[in-house]
Amino acid sequence: MYKLEKSGSPLYMQLYMQIKEDIVNNILKANTKLPSIRKMSSDYKISKTTVESAYSQLYAEGYIESHPQSGYFVSKDIVQNFTSLPIEKSNQQIEKQYKYDFYQAKHSEDVFPKKLWSKLHNKVISSIDFGSYPNKQGDLNLRKELSAYLSESRAVICDEEQIVICSGFSDSMFIISTMLKKFTSSIAIEYPGYNVVQEVFSLQNYKITNIPLLKNGIDLKILKNSKDKLLYVTPSHQYPTGKTIPISKRMELINWACENDAYIIEDDYDSELSYNNRPIPSLQGINDNQRVIYSGTFSKALSPAIRVSYIVLPKKLVPIYKKIFNFSFSGVPIDIQKSLELFIKEGHWDKHIRKMRTLNKKKHDLMKKAIKEYLKDSVSILREGSGLTILIKAKIDMDWEKLFTLLEENSIKVYSTTCDSNLKDNTIYLGFGGFKEDKISIAVESFSKQWFKAAKNTN
Amino acid sequence: MYKLEKSGSPLYMQLYMQIKEDIVNNILKANTKLPSIRKMSSDYKISKTTVESAYSQLYAEGYIESHPQSGYFVSKDIVQNFTSLPIEKSNQQIEKQYKYDFYQAKHSEDVFPKKLWSKLHNKVISSIDFGSYPNKQGDLNLRKELSAYLSESRAVICDEEQIVICSGFSDSMFIISTMLKKFTSSIAIEYPGYNVVQEVFSLQNYKITNIPLLKNGIDLKILKNSKDKLLYVTPSHQYPTGKTIPISKRMELINWACENDAYIIEDDYDSELSYNNRPIPSLQGINDNQRVIYSGTFSKALSPAIRVSYIVLPKKLVPIYKKIFNFSFSGVPIDIQKSLELFIKEGHWDKHIRKMRTLNKKKHDLMKKAIKEYLKDSVSILREGSGLTILIKAKIDMDWEKLFTLLEENSIKVYSTTCDSNLKDNTIYLGFGGFKEDKISIAVESFSKQWFKAAKNTN
Repeated sequence: MYKLEKSGSPLYMQLYMQIKEDIVNNILKANTKLPSIRKMSSDYKISKTTVESAYSQLYAEGYIESHPQSGYFVSKDIVQNFTSLPIEKSNQQIEKQYKYDFYQAKHSEDVFPKKLWSKLHNKVISSIDFGSYPNKQGDLNLRKELSAYLSESRAVICDEEQIVICSGFSDSMFIISTMLKKFTSSIAIEYPGYNVVQEVFSLQNYKITNIPLLKNGIDLKILKNSKDKLLYVTPSHQYPTGKTIPISKRMELINWACENDAYIIEDDYDSELSYNNRPIPSLQGINDNQRVIYSGTFSKALSPAIRVSYIVLPKKLVPIYKKIFNFSFSGVPIDIQKSLELFIKEGHWDKHIRKMRTLNKKKHDLMKKAIKEYLKDSVSILREGSGLTILIKAKIDMDWEKLFTLLEENSIKVYSTTCDSNLKDNTIYLGFGGFKEDKISIAVESFSKQWFKAAKNTN
Repeated sequence: MYKLEKSGSPLYMQLYMQIKEDIVNNILKANTKLPSIRKMSSDYKISKTTVESAYSQLYAEGYIESHPQSGYFVSKDIVQNFTSLPIEKSNQQIEKQYKYDFYQAKHSEDVFPKKLWSKLHNKVISSIDFGSYPNKQGDLNLRKELSAYLSESRAVICDEEQIVICSGFSDSMFIISTMLKKFTSSIAIEYPGYNVVQEVFSLQNYKITNIPLLKNGIDLKILKNSKDKLLYVTPSHQYPTGKTIPISKRMELINWACENDAYIIEDDYDSELSYNNRPIPSLQGINDNQRVIYSGTFSKALSPAIRVSYIVLPKKLVPIYKKIFNFSFSGVPIDIQKSLELFIKEGHWDKHIRKMRTLNKKKHDLMKKAIKEYLKDSVSILREGSGLTILIKAKIDMDWEKLFTLLEENSIKVYSTTCDSNLKDNTIYLGFGGFKEDKISIAVESFSKQWFKAAKNTN
């Protein structure tokens, strides 16, 4: 007997659930005939439609079978009782909020133009078609705006057909590494360098050659000997050292690529933010735009949380990209693409970059001053003058384990270059982007207290 | 002599550009000493700062070198003249807009709740930290909402730690295929099946085994013989045939996975939209949630343009995922994630799904009626009753080339199952999602005119 209650879930659901339970628990055995719809309906004083709905659901899920002219039967093959186990809750990993976080790729919360972003979003949304898949390579108009910007500001030579809109740097690298698999199975990477490139290309089974950095960029002799046909570099602002590859070396790189039918991935992650000089024109623009895959991002200058990056392909690679990724769509939501298009088109992006340059320079100078004041000559500054971080190296003997323990206890987070690159000589990023201006000095002061506590007593 | 004009770009830029040009054109030869800053300043009646800025930029880019105590010199290694070639414009591929587009994964423009989406976006934006990288797996609160929804609506058993927020289905598949590379190098895929799975896993060098569909799901004997340890299926709503795997077969699949230490990818792309029955409970929820990787998306029920999908990992795979993708961030912008979280939390998602079920059923019935009216018995209906499409097969002799030519000429677009699956027997999707209700009948009528014109005369 089934218990059907007028209150609660729909009657057909109650009937369905109870019959299902009986089948699962083998109370209704295989091949048992179910009462006819008419009989069920009159026995329980419910409508035929209710019984039909319950049977129809059981049928759809395969619990019962329908035999023409003779009715519904419990299916033969319900072989196994099953129960849903209660789920054990995982230990939740709440990310710790630090009092002072010196992360090198972070902006203070006041940097992102929220009101403007909202306004643009409201403006674009009415004309968006949310019902269709968007353009595979990224919205055409956004790509047009980007190509104009890149030409003007980064001396990149391209049209919109060469641009692919991606969901952040690792997505850009996944696309490149997937696209070039048939072309080559190894890549040369500047050393030290940004670890994400190594991670992605390793996951795609590329052999990695580390090309050591000399004073003026990577060691060309080692590159040439490697026989690699793909090179990753950060020519405008080397990561993590901050160096710039001079023009002569750039041309040698281009020549190497031309002579060896090779490609160069130019990662231009933050050079538009350069504040001590004008941004260095891109490597891509030097030559005939056939050998350089240019990679850019909105993470560094606008926001790492909006997840938009892009690559510019040499013309030759465009049809190859289109063929390989014919099934795939840019991962950037259409409203974000349209907002960004308007952001660039209306001139906000240019303004924002100028504002960021000024702001970063101010923060940089405050940080440098604080380092001199509080860390004095216990450190040397390895890199400064651009980006969102100052790179320091200890000049005193340091108990590193003790330092990081003390910092953790005091809710201070600093990052070593070993975390995100293979530069392994105890250099530390002191990122200033995440602090409002008035917090920089006190952050460095707080850091310096633990720093000196962890210094080894060298009496 | 340099020409510096008071109007136009900044003086230092003019000086920098002209010196650079002279160097590039070999007018200023290697090792030439540049005039001192003081001399330049007095010769041109410009400030020392202006000259310094110009020299500093040339230095940063490597055009000149600085020799201590003797000044600036043109660099030795500018080996090659270079010019930026004018860029040839590519042929722009504007996507054709059809008068009647029968695409099977499309919604009419009135379906997406634009006003609500705007409102939610405005609401969440004030509390977002745009300055930091978001959670790697996807926003924690969105994952919590999703896990509650999946448990309630799809009988998926999981907590938020098992969920990864992805940028659409192919991104989901890229993550799974990358994660499982070390576990296996081959995958069994239901045949016919959705082509994107095959594309992604092939790009990742997996060997593909096609497992033919029988009446009640894939052929288990062939699966067992294949020795594969990874299987892709669409158990609730097979693509493209629309079939459902009955409960007995589901349990056999789970048993197969348990016995063989194998994983099943359950692609549950649109079963929440089922309108003839309640949605079939997921395969993932049947067992102990250790063998099924569940894949879901917002593309089918909400919008393909917002690019949000998700996967639910078995607990065992969570640490493996975290280790492999430690460097990578979910590609979904934080404002989209937060808007979506609120969309689910405030109950709009449930309401939306109910609305979509009713609407789709209405459109489906209109389309079916129109097919009977205009195509009469020239076609058989292979699949109906769920999703956004009716699958038809010609019962008359058809000149297919002529048909597609005629359709193209009349701005009508239909899709064959060969376009996105390997079902190759001239079946055609008549998708209804993209039409407003009052356009369905006329769309089918227009299609039918070309259909009968292309029929072979079998006198």
